[in-house]
Amino acid sequence: MSVVQVHTPGGNYPIHVEAGRLDQLQQSIPADATTLALITNPTVFALYGQRVLTALQATGKKVVQVQIPDGEAYKTMATLEQIFDALLQNRLDRKAVIVALGGGVVGDISGFAAACFMRGIRFIQVPTTLLSQVDSSVGGKTAINHPLGKNMIGAFYQPIAVEIDIHVLKTLPKREIAAGLAEVIKYGMITDADFLDWCLAHTEALNQLRDAELQQAVKRSCELKAYVVSQDERESGLRAILNFGHTFGHAIEAGLGYGEWLHGEAVGCGMVMAAELSAEVCGLSAESVQKVRQLVQAIGCPTTPPQWDHDKWIDLMGLDKKAEGGQLRFVLLPELGRSVVQAVDVATVKKVLAKF
Amino acid sequence: MSVVQVHTPGGNYPIHVEAGRLDQLQQSIPADATTLALITNPTVFALYGQRVLTALQATGKKVVQVQIPDGEAYKTMATLEQIFDALLQNRLDRKAVIVALGGGVVGDISGFAAACFMRGIRFIQVPTTLLSQVDSSVGGKTAINHPLGKNMIGAFYQPIAVEIDIHVLKTLPKREIAAGLAEVIKYGMITDADFLDWCLAHTEALNQLRDAELQQAVKRSCELKAYVVSQDERESGLRAILNFGHTFGHAIEAGLGYGEWLHGEAVGCGMVMAAELSAEVCGLSAESVQKVRQLVQAIGCPTTPPQWDHDKWIDLMGLDKKAEGGQLRFVLLPELGRSVVQAVDVATVKKVLAKF
Repeated sequence: MSVVQVHTPGGNYPIHVEAGRLDQLQQSIPADATTLALITNPTVFALYGQRVLTALQATGKKVVQVQIPDGEAYKTMATLEQIFDALLQNRLDRKAVIVALGGGVVGDISGFAAACFMRGIRFIQVPTTLLSQVDSSVGGKTAINHPLGKNMIGAFYQPIAVEIDIHVLKTLPKREIAAGLAEVIKYGMITDADFLDWCLAHTEALNQLRDAELQQAVKRSCELKAYVVSQDERESGLRAILNFGHTFGHAIEAGLGYGEWLHGEAVGCGMVMAAELSAEVCGLSAESVQKVRQLVQAIGCPTTPPQWDHDKWIDLMGLDKKAEGGQLRFVLLPELGRSVVQAVDVATVKKVLAKF
Repeated sequence: MSVVQVHTPGGNYPIHVEAGRLDQLQQSIPADATTLALITNPTVFALYGQRVLTALQATGKKVVQVQIPDGEAYKTMATLEQIFDALLQNRLDRKAVIVALGGGVVGDISGFAAACFMRGIRFIQVPTTLLSQVDSSVGGKTAINHPLGKNMIGAFYQPIAVEIDIHVLKTLPKREIAAGLAEVIKYGMITDADFLDWCLAHTEALNQLRDAELQQAVKRSCELKAYVVSQDERESGLRAILNFGHTFGHAIEAGLGYGEWLHGEAVGCGMVMAAELSAEVCGLSAESVQKVRQLVQAIGCPTTPPQWDHDKWIDLMGLDKKAEGGQLRFVLLPELGRSVVQAVDVATVKKVLAKF
């Protein structure tokens, strides 16, 4: 088992990465927990629900099940209310613990429910997609969507543990693996050029989910994310670099309607666009842009964005949370492995949009 | 002007107490605020909205108005959504500042909106009821109600300033003054017997809203609350004493339907009940119980609770957030000015209920 320790002002917690971890979850349940609420969706429950229930029930504590609909389209206030209803109908108290079993949607909404329920109860992330294992489950960003923007309503709220079983990835569709690998290679692009080269050398092993390479990639991604988050829990500075590719990516998701492209696919394509913008604005070399494009392609993510009017792009990006006082802000790469946050004028953005 | 400084892990901020403070609000707006969102209700807006708008507009910043319906019955998820819709439609960003102008409902829901909007933006409390001036605006507890319980969904989230104008109390109905004074005398009961005696000696001046006594009572209440909150922001220990009278009080509010009795009225009556329970469980003297009852009566709050079946009381109190693992917990007074949190068995609670 690999353990990555996360340190933030909002709390310290371990990430356990292990094949077969699902059967060991009882190890992370605090002794003083009164009730456990397992939040998941029917798809994940059918695959892993019984194993997780068995592990949780091994603590001797009451386990309440809450199933929410599957998909980004349900990361809404209505689903959040459904969770609160279930928690209150089952009379959970302040010492209850939420266990979020699923991908980013389950993790984000369950974490936000934990943040708000009675002003905050403990929760554990058990991410079952590659994307959520390397990204959304680590760092304490929780949220729901609003019709006017993704993740607009949420909280910074840390779990007490993240439990990663890399074997659950074997039941994922190929598209979701590609979407998760997009975030893996992102860590290389923004912070670690060596890891980026390692990824480039192992795309085949990663695409085929070979245990050793997968464990290494997940662990390194969590380490890099944990490092960034520990420096800046509330995204006032460094943490913003984790949004590399996300300004374009969020626009793609919002413009097509959430769920049309997977988040990681949109980010994958967004990274190619942000690399082109980096070349235009801060001198990223043409070879480096090519390397980004090649890697995004090699892991099976799209590199061609939807063909929209440029004003539609600008409009969609203007609602992004990084927009401050009317300026468009992007994470850019002066070189591979190093990233900066910078304001870019609309004309330059449109010039880059014209290349796609 | 009196200034009380609040120190918590979640942030430090000043409470300004001053007659005419409404016209000085621009002094507390941060220079880097992009947009200001004034959240209030039509009743308060009619009385003070224009003055506050003038003060806020003196900063030269754009001010967005959000009016929400008046009353505890609207401290709901639906109203919260209305606020989010308005903030997003007006394209507020992460550097926007919310100004909450109103009583506890406006303050609690606006604070919770600020806590969740884009995972947290700054907000300023401008409480316009006595209750909110001495209680809900200080300490960072924000929340909305759920059909199954009061304040069940919320966050610990600190404002950047609390702005108290004691002159706004002159337009309040007598019942609301009484409800606010209930919380004022509560601070005496739980932490400061001298202040309790001072209140007893000045009930007439307080009931008549005389400037000097009112300023003193509000300032001392804020100081005592700030002290407790600074010791324990997240209610894991000491802060629980602020809930003196609230276990019974919340049951009254939930059982009658929120808004039937004012929160402070329910707490006033709840304090008399909790005093009787203290006599039964931890030896509060009969004379002290009598003093509590006399003071609650002198400020004009009810001292006789609704006549319900005892099991209904127990059931209503079981949903209170202080219930842990099935036990009923109460804040009790071994003597006036000193408080403890203690589990009490149901039979003893019923014995005390029989006295009312």
